[in-house]
Amino acid sequence: MIKNTLFLDALKGKTVERPPVWMMRQAGRFLPEFIALRNKYDFFTRCRTPELASEITVQPIRRFGMDAAILFSDILVIPQAMNIEVEMKPGVGPWIPNPIRLQKDVDSVIVPDINQTLGYVMQAIKLTKEKLNNEVPLIGFAGSPWTILCYCVQGQGSKTFDKAKKFCFTQPLVAHQLLQKITDTTIAYLKEKVKSGVDAVQIFDSWGGMLSPTDYQEFSWKYIQQIIDALKEDAPVIAFGKGCWFALNTMAKSGASALGIDWTVTPQTARKLTGGNITLQGNLDPSRLLSPPSEIKKMTKQMIDDFGKDKYIVNLGHGILPNIPLENAKAFIDTVKEYKSYV
Amino acid sequence: MIKNTLFLDALKGKTVERPPVWMMRQAGRFLPEFIALRNKYDFFTRCRTPELASEITVQPIRRFGMDAAILFSDILVIPQAMNIEVEMKPGVGPWIPNPIRLQKDVDSVIVPDINQTLGYVMQAIKLTKEKLNNEVPLIGFAGSPWTILCYCVQGQGSKTFDKAKKFCFTQPLVAHQLLQKITDTTIAYLKEKVKSGVDAVQIFDSWGGMLSPTDYQEFSWKYIQQIIDALKEDAPVIAFGKGCWFALNTMAKSGASALGIDWTVTPQTARKLTGGNITLQGNLDPSRLLSPPSEIKKMTKQMIDDFGKDKYIVNLGHGILPNIPLENAKAFIDTVKEYKSYV
Repeated sequence: MIKNTLFLDALKGKTVERPPVWMMRQAGRFLPEFIALRNKYDFFTRCRTPELASEITVQPIRRFGMDAAILFSDILVIPQAMNIEVEMKPGVGPWIPNPIRLQKDVDSVIVPDINQTLGYVMQAIKLTKEKLNNEVPLIGFAGSPWTILCYCVQGQGSKTFDKAKKFCFTQPLVAHQLLQKITDTTIAYLKEKVKSGVDAVQIFDSWGGMLSPTDYQEFSWKYIQQIIDALKEDAPVIAFGKGCWFALNTMAKSGASALGIDWTVTPQTARKLTGGNITLQGNLDPSRLLSPPSEIKKMTKQMIDDFGKDKYIVNLGHGILPNIPLENAKAFIDTVKEYKSYV
Repeated sequence: MIKNTLFLDALKGKTVERPPVWMMRQAGRFLPEFIALRNKYDFFTRCRTPELASEITVQPIRRFGMDAAILFSDILVIPQAMNIEVEMKPGVGPWIPNPIRLQKDVDSVIVPDINQTLGYVMQAIKLTKEKLNNEVPLIGFAGSPWTILCYCVQGQGSKTFDKAKKFCFTQPLVAHQLLQKITDTTIAYLKEKVKSGVDAVQIFDSWGGMLSPTDYQEFSWKYIQQIIDALKEDAPVIAFGKGCWFALNTMAKSGASALGIDWTVTPQTARKLTGGNITLQGNLDPSRLLSPPSEIKKMTKQMIDDFGKDKYIVNLGHGILPNIPLENAKAFIDTVKEYKSYV
């Protein structure tokens, strides 16, 4: 059994001594030991080599002792497995040489056999579990179908994802076919991850906040709900929609074990919008880790007071930025570990 | 007197036959007659030449007959006047060769004499008023001090504006000096614009939604409130903060005549968050103008029904995208002009 139960207890809504803490994108970017590996191996080599992915996953745990590890991988391994070419261009980010725009493009997208196409992820999970040695739980993740569609149709990152939205708004039936294929693949993928050993899964809807509340229900939430329905008996599910404050009340009724909250929602508003009964995760502005450590400590303590120590997982409101000093990340983590509630 | 009073009546909260309509960034981008001028004159030449700026301002009115014109200009003429070099790099956007990072950088920023530095804007206003011939009112605008700071410190556009935030979070006193200088300049600028003939002003806080609610109050709203306080006796003020749903209740009590709403807030939520008594402006997702015209008509009609025809200005939830077909923009405008309420 896993020794540090804080994270899984919080997901179950149990009373805890202090809230657990981890950081989105903790495996990578800001860690010198990660950068050393990045300089040697390209992005997808790191994802596809279980020895590297598992090493990167445990690096932050060794250094900071977070209460949960998250498997190093990328949301775009899913479209790759679905027969969509995805590159990682230095200085550009994700790059899809042949973006999906037409019915025929969607027709050529497959719902793949997971072990055949993404077996390397399952091996990375098994190796990571060995390395973690039951010290802390391991989180697996996937992008939301809408967020995956955004990249596959736009062809790269974007401020507005206007091509992705045009695709959905002018060819909704075709868009829904693509979203369903991504959803089916994601469900099979996450189920296989749980079988391979992850203790919880998180769905990242990075671009859900680009949609109006009505369009969000149609093009994003509907599919996230399918994933939650399919997964919730297998493992706790955390749903995180950046900029999706407007859907928090719907999300709270979804069967997810926890909801990720970004930093534009105050703890009080987050509790109010979600009905006060579901575990919440978040939400320090990642840029606030650029503040002096003394201020980080103060803000983190206040954040825990405001969310309350129970039904709460301390995290950032989005991924950690690459330029965060190690001592600042440490100040964040340590504040949670030293937290004493006097209530 | 101005013949079409719909826009100014809506700003006063008067009962109207139908709501007025205009589109943020209507002067430019998607119009072929604008592109013809863009191909001949570079960005700041267009801003600085009153004949060009006024021509671009009236182009959309001639073509579509919106109920208000907005002066063609740019929010970055303000830092230019303050002794900060700003370029517009093709394919990159705003580019500040010497970004502000230190006390000494802020010390060298000036609060300029408006007529000396921005007289060309005042001439453009006078020329535009002549061309408009009292048919429709003219809106002048400025960026929020926070949004201006974002560019001046970051040095260019950004997904996170992490350098701008680091500047504020590690050197708050220096940041506040800069914000106050921008605020003082903006107030003088907008007052001069009103004197020159604009009938209303809008403050664009494009990057306010990057901040947490607490940081928003400190680094953005405080200064917008100063501008509203200084301007509200001169002309109606519209405050628009993209992604700033969390501050709408504060904004509603600010003395602004209207608030801009982005498309992540439903009309019902917008009315609720603002107390139901202030004029609202917005909020169709600009990407939704990529939908077929028949659908645009349906959504626009529904939007008016949901906001209510009074205390309402029809607009997009952000600027019009460059790739919007003319007939789609026309469908949007015409739906409002043909609107009949059966309530």
